[in-house]
Amino acid sequence: MIFQHMDRIVFAGDSVTDMGSQCPVGEGLADRLGRGYVRVVDSLLAAAYPEVYVRVTNSGISGDTSRDLLARFERDVISLEPDWISICIGVNDVWRQFDSPALSDQHVLPQEYGENMTKMIAASRRVAKGVFVLSPYYIEPNPEDPMRRLMDEYGAICRELAAENGCVFVDFQKMFADYCAYRHSTFIAWDRVHPNQVGATLMAREFLRHCDFTF
Amino acid sequence: MIFQHMDRIVFAGDSVTDMGSQCPVGEGLADRLGRGYVRVVDSLLAAAYPEVYVRVTNSGISGDTSRDLLARFERDVISLEPDWISICIGVNDVWRQFDSPALSDQHVLPQEYGENMTKMIAASRRVAKGVFVLSPYYIEPNPEDPMRRLMDEYGAICRELAAENGCVFVDFQKMFADYCAYRHSTFIAWDRVHPNQVGATLMAREFLRHCDFTF
Amino acid sequence: MIFQHMDRIVFAGDSVTDMGSQCPVGEGLADRLGRGYVRVVDSLLAAAYPEVYVRVTNSGISGDTSRDLLARFERDVISLEPDWISICIGVNDVWRQFDSPALSDQHVLPQEYGENMTKMIAASRRVAKGVFVLSPYYIEPNPEDPMRRLMDEYGAICRELAAENGCVFVDFQKMFADYCAYRHSTFIAWDRVHPNQVGATLMAREFLRHCDFTF
Amino acid sequence: MIFQHMDRIVFAGDSVTDMGSQCPVGEGLADRLGRGYVRVVDSLLAAAYPEVYVRVTNSGISGDTSRDLLARFERDVISLEPDWISICIGVNDVWRQFDSPALSDQHVLPQEYGENMTKMIAASRRVAKGVFVLSPYYIEPNPEDPMRRLMDEYGAICRELAAENGCVFVDFQKMFADYCAYRHSTFIAWDRVHPNQVGATLMAREFLRHCDFTF
Amino acid sequence: MIFQHMDRIVFAGDSVTDMGSQCPVGEGLADRLGRGYVRVVDSLLAAAYPEVYVRVTNSGISGDTSRDLLARFERDVISLEPDWISICIGVNDVWRQFDSPALSDQHVLPQEYGENMTKMIAASRRVAKGVFVLSPYYIEPNPEDPMRRLMDEYGAICRELAAENGCVFVDFQKMFADYCAYRHSTFIAWDRVHPNQVGATLMAREFLRHCDFTF
Amino acid sequence: MIFQHMDRIVFAGDSVTDMGSQCPVGEGLADRLGRGYVRVVDSLLAAAYPEVYVRVTNSGISGDTSRDLLARFERDVISLEPDWISICIGVNDVWRQFDSPALSDQHVLPQEYGENMTKMIAASRRVAKGVFVLSPYYIEPNPEDPMRRLMDEYGAICRELAAENGCVFVDFQKMFADYCAYRHSTFIAWDRVHPNQVGATLMAREFLRHCDFTF
Amino acid sequence: MIFQHMDRIVFAGDSVTDMGSQCPVGEGLADRLGRGYVRVVDSLLAAAYPEVYVRVTNSGISGDTSRDLLARFERDVISLEPDWISICIGVNDVWRQFDSPALSDQHVLPQEYGENMTKMIAASRRVAKGVFVLSPYYIEPNPEDPMRRLMDEYGAICRELAAENGCVFVDFQKMFADYCAYRHSTFIAWDRVHPNQVGATLMAREFLRHCDFTF
Amino acid sequence: MIFQHMDRIVFAGDSVTDMGSQCPVGEGLADRLGRGYVRVVDSLLAAAYPEVYVRVTNSGISGDTSRDLLARFERDVISLEPDWISICIGVNDVWRQFDSPALSDQHVLPQEYGENMTKMIAASRRVAKGVFVLSPYYIEPNPEDPMRRLMDEYGAICRELAAENGCVFVDFQKMFADYCAYRHSTFIAWDRVHPNQVGATLMAREFLRHCDFTF
Repeated sequence: MIFQHMDRIVFAGDSVTDMGSQCPVGEGLADRLGRGYVRVVDSLLAAAYPEVYVRVTNSGISGDTSRDLLARFERDVISLEPDWISICIGVNDVWRQFDSPALSDQHVLPQEYGENMTKMIAASRRVAKGVFVLSPYYIEPNPEDPMRRLMDEYGAICRELAAENGCVFVDFQKMFADYCAYRHSTFIAWDRVHPNQVGATLMAREFLRHCDFTF
Repeated sequence: MIFQHMDRIVFAGDSVTDMGSQCPVGEGLADRLGRGYVRVVDSLLAAAYPEVYVRVTNSGISGDTSRDLLARFERDVISLEPDWISICIGVNDVWRQFDSPALSDQHVLPQEYGENMTKMIAASRRVAKGVFVLSPYYIEPNPEDPMRRLMDEYGAICRELAAENGCVFVDFQKMFADYCAYRHSTFIAWDRVHPNQVGATLMAREFLRHCDFTF
Repeated sequence: MIFQHMDRIVFAGDSVTDMGSQCPVGEGLADRLGRGYVRVVDSLLAAAYPEVYVRVTNSGISGDTSRDLLARFERDVISLEPDWISICIGVNDVWRQFDSPALSDQHVLPQEYGENMTKMIAASRRVAKGVFVLSPYYIEPNPEDPMRRLMDEYGAICRELAAENGCVFVDFQKMFADYCAYRHSTFIAWDRVHPNQVGATLMAREFLRHCDFTF
Repeated sequence: MIFQHMDRIVFAGDSVTDMGSQCPVGEGLADRLGRGYVRVVDSLLAAAYPEVYVRVTNSGISGDTSRDLLARFERDVISLEPDWISICIGVNDVWRQFDSPALSDQHVLPQEYGENMTKMIAASRRVAKGVFVLSPYYIEPNPEDPMRRLMDEYGAICRELAAENGCVFVDFQKMFADYCAYRHSTFIAWDRVHPNQVGATLMAREFLRHCDFTF
Repeated sequence: MIFQHMDRIVFAGDSVTDMGSQCPVGEGLADRLGRGYVRVVDSLLAAAYPEVYVRVTNSGISGDTSRDLLARFERDVISLEPDWISICIGVNDVWRQFDSPALSDQHVLPQEYGENMTKMIAASRRVAKGVFVLSPYYIEPNPEDPMRRLMDEYGAICRELAAENGCVFVDFQKMFADYCAYRHSTFIAWDRVHPNQVGATLMAREFLRHCDFTF
Repeated sequence: MIFQHMDRIVFAGDSVTDMGSQCPVGEGLADRLGRGYVRVVDSLLAAAYPEVYVRVTNSGISGDTSRDLLARFERDVISLEPDWISICIGVNDVWRQFDSPALSDQHVLPQEYGENMTKMIAASRRVAKGVFVLSPYYIEPNPEDPMRRLMDEYGAICRELAAENGCVFVDFQKMFADYCAYRHSTFIAWDRVHPNQVGATLMAREFLRHCDFTF
Repeated sequence: MIFQHMDRIVFAGDSVTDMGSQCPVGEGLADRLGRGYVRVVDSLLAAAYPEVYVRVTNSGISGDTSRDLLARFERDVISLEPDWISICIGVNDVWRQFDSPALSDQHVLPQEYGENMTKMIAASRRVAKGVFVLSPYYIEPNPEDPMRRLMDEYGAICRELAAENGCVFVDFQKMFADYCAYRHSTFIAWDRVHPNQVGATLMAREFLRHCDFTF
Repeated sequence: MIFQHMDRIVFAGDSVTDMGSQCPVGEGLADRLGRGYVRVVDSLLAAAYPEVYVRVTNSGISGDTSRDLLARFERDVISLEPDWISICIGVNDVWRQFDSPALSDQHVLPQEYGENMTKMIAASRRVAKGVFVLSPYYIEPNPEDPMRRLMDEYGAICRELAAENGCVFVDFQKMFADYCAYRHSTFIAWDRVHPNQVGATLMAREFLRHCDFTF
């Protein structure tokens, strides 16, 4: 496994990362890591590698767009001196364009999204030995759905920036699309965004596949 | 308008009809009619026709399948001696097949659904001067989505039974599909089933279009 | 309809406008628009004109008099750069004179009311392309009732100022009076001020009648 | 004062009598007497006549019509073996006809009201040495208001039955009408039915004026 | 009655005055006046003198000693520009000496109490046309009880200062002592300090006896 | 110490015994023993005698008079097959005569009290090897206080019955009276009945003094 | 993997199995499966084998001993017609002997435990194609600790009965003991019994290792 | 007994001292002293020595390490001018190393612990006439358990510093170890740290044994 004893990983993101974690930053006992994929990653690491102590920190805040995350990135991510940084942002950048089409000042368009991601990735690379870029996603199997199509555009920006900057790219969108060949999206998330425990487990598994993890 | 002074309409259904109404049967002051399309219908009737007193009763219960509704139909609908009956059931018959695929005893398959509907329509016609059949729906614009496709199958059963029995058929599925040409489904319902107030207003308007209603 | 794609309407007012909305300013998902006429206006616009995105903002705060609203008008209304502004204030200016007769510093008398309204209308006209003045009201059919009589005085100030300043005047008082010819005021509002959903629907319908709205 | 040491008075009624008292029957410590006129009567008696122990019992239940009260009169009033009985019922008999005009089975019309009252008075006279009939009321100063007019009709039934049966008649309607010459009804009760502490004090004072009470 | 139209009375005190009122200062609708003797005074005045509007303000705060009240007297009493001021303080000055004997810094001894009272009375006389001094009390009939004996010492200070400064002295201690000849103190207050509604009524009646009040 | 390994003691009583314990019978983990003297007894026994396991059961129910306790004595005490039984009842028999003087059917007079106690003691002696009678008390140092005087009468009945039947008599009244020579009753219990932790500790200590207990 | 499409597994047990699940039996959406190892098993199965629908049912109830579970085994396990049954019971049989040593009727001793397990295993084998026996455990690394030692005795009974009856034996005690070589028991469970998410993940992983599961 | 009339004792510590007390500093009525050993000490002193008023102050805050306590020691302990100071800290210094091994910045290692204790003891001796050092503990009978072993190391630092500085050393660890010879640690504290009432009583008794206390 790629993480070493006493490494620290900070997971930055929105409600999908947050899932009830302590805000702005949560770690340690009780439910401070939230109930989403971050906790499942933490549990699986601790269960499978008892001899390696990995410090997992949840810096997700519900409702954040990439604009919001950028504004707090120094305080909630960089200043924690992480060894690894994971960024999973963009769902709300897209979602607000569809569920609140008239509230234009809440919409983060692709160009700004790319700029925000570029700044966060650059800041991350300066302090961390590894950076993960986790694609935003919409658990909608129909690629012609407008929100899915726009989400794919944001995901492509992630993929490209990850490649340019030597980051690990984790493609949640593809993973969920593959899964939906077998089970309907309502099995994982009634609103196609916030996964239940099965969805969180799928995300954690996909993340760990990029970490040389053995169950 | 087709309703006459002191007519009583009973709306039977599941959570889409219920929406927090008093259970098993709600009517009158405060929030006893729930917060869904039934209340919007009631408000629009009362606002537009102050001289006609129409008694609106909500017999929706969250989670009901057609099997559940049939079991309580005599008590919660027929025994109220309604002049008009509206039936909107089937979403859960379909949904459980997708979000709980292994819980087969909660699945109501098309054949049973047709039989349940047939019995309820027959009972309704014996007591009421008019019966509305409201299609179950899934606010999913992609007709190839498996849950949408199955829902369409249930909707077709409704349409057919309505035609055979002289009922008014209200096609919510088509109405939502038309609307989604302009706005994304997340604008109406995050889970594509439980509508917000815009969705409830759309449903009430569609219902009232079959009632010779003038705003 | 008079509103155009991406127009923004700000509804300023007191508890009748607020009705549980997010304070000081609410808009967008969930119950942030409150449960009163503002939400019904929003739902009807969105249902009937899916191709026109209108941004509806609720700037109502419970208990406000015209004095309170004036004090926050720049922050909660003007600075939002609305295309349309609706002002519905005055109920509490009058009410406190009757339910708290000894608390004279909470009474806003007609002269001050007129001055407050004049300032708000002037500020509104500088930024918005249209201004609605909605009459304060008391759902009391007896024109000789002292509180109704005083409310009519405030309403007359509204009507006059609206005419002088080219604003649209919406006469809620008359609309409710007409309605009470058919149903008793307790059917709409137990305290003759805070309308239930029927009352909110009546108010929204009356408002939309001045907007070239088609159901 | 007419009450003697260890006399028991039972106050039967609806929400105006109940006001949060223990149901179906409340007496003794804490808030078991509710927060309405019954408690004020009890406090004034205890304060002014420390040497006379009067047992005050609240048999009011919110929402009751005369039909509901009659159904429980034996259990909640007669079986308590009171020395004095006070009956204050009828507001809901009238109110439902105005706020829920389509729910006809909740309407208790004048004829039935008179029959219900007749039965309760007869039962009371068989066990108690004194019976008070307290008029239902609507704190509406306009005698032409339809609900006030109908309430007056029920009040007249009370007055007549009281006279025929040797009961003490307490005319709350007239007392409130006189008071409204000085202060507006909203000063006493926002919904013109449920009095605040000023209203409760007015009612208690009016009641005690028929009891040879000295402050 | 001594109060005139639009007079304002401010009641300063501790929990006995406060009784759940809005803090630091409460007046007007709902329960802002608390549930103690202040509200009973207000209700009796409004009931008996509808033509005289008296503004009643509750400036009681639970737990206050005379030291605490003095510290906020300018802000919570004087600055309100009252026509009449009522001061009822001292229970906690005494009580803490008995229920928390080791917490000496919470004890306000007689000398300091006298100084605090002197300052508050002087400040009151400068702004108000009348000042009431209400004795602290302990509803303990045994004059030899140590806490009662000490309370009597504080009460004597009140009586003396009232006489010297032309204030109205209301002797709650004597009134309660007289009452306890008929009923036990537990009938009024389980802890012999916080009166129930009977006790509050007794206090209000005693206060109003000094105001030329007619029931 | 008189208790032996695996002995069971059942404490029967009212709110003083109950103090929030599980009802009707509490024992074991968490707060099931309540927060009163029963728990302090249990804690002291377990702390001082780790080698002796004593089963302590709380059969106290708030508000009980001796009449209520007698009615449930078989179910809540005898059927538990205790080795020792402690009875502490009578406070409410007396208290209701003072705080609710008009509610005569809630008063348990001395004769009935003696009969109730006699029956419970007899039943206890048939099954237990030892019976404790704990005096009811009123933490009122003045022996001339009417409630204290009546309580003493009930206490004398206890003392006499204990002596006649070979029970251990624990005189809480005397213990509290002695204590009040040093500290005021409000230091132990604001209402002179329900002790705080100091009072509960005093009671437990007094009880254990009759059990040959060493701290 | 050993489970086949549409197989049903019922997990019977105590609070370790229950962990907040719906009682007496939970399955399906939301948190009905609880938050313990049962949910982790369900999530991992669903994530790794999307094409195999396995129905997971939680029949755990907090506080149950083997005596309690046996009493409801027919209703909560057998009657559900499971294909697989998992039994994890015994922690409370042992625990009560240590935290409530005097409450002997709550202690289930080894002999009764063996008999209870024998009956449940026999009943299970009659209906299911496979039976899992999961050892009770105490996350106490010191094998000389008295509660650990007794728990090992119960675990040995499980192991033996599993071997005799062809059941799969899952040794949680050994798994936790091995884990404690690396991390302290407080890392998994503050009370050494109720595991946090890391502990639940360890248990699920250990269970699945006997199911031919691939991550 | 060593405490004199009007002496003040301040108990500084973590959650074991705090146990729900008012924070940062609690004393006096109600539950302000918490529910732990501090309250039991207070109750026993007040019960046994009514003529000596000792002021007991709880300065415990949950979660505190010696680092946290040192940071607030001047404000929450020294500035209160205590006659006696008790310090019980260190459990969290050790615990976090075991339940959160990767959160190294929350670990207070032995050297820092010794320095923190040295500073607090020195400050205490400057103001108080007596200083108690209460050992941190882990109610784990196995001395080879790693957390117990480390706790013993911290306890040894306490003992040594107490001896060097003339403080009273109270050895909770030894007291609990002795007790566990008779009853299992789960009888006192499920998590081996936070004692129930039996544990709190044991601690209070052990503390008082160093105070020349007689029960």
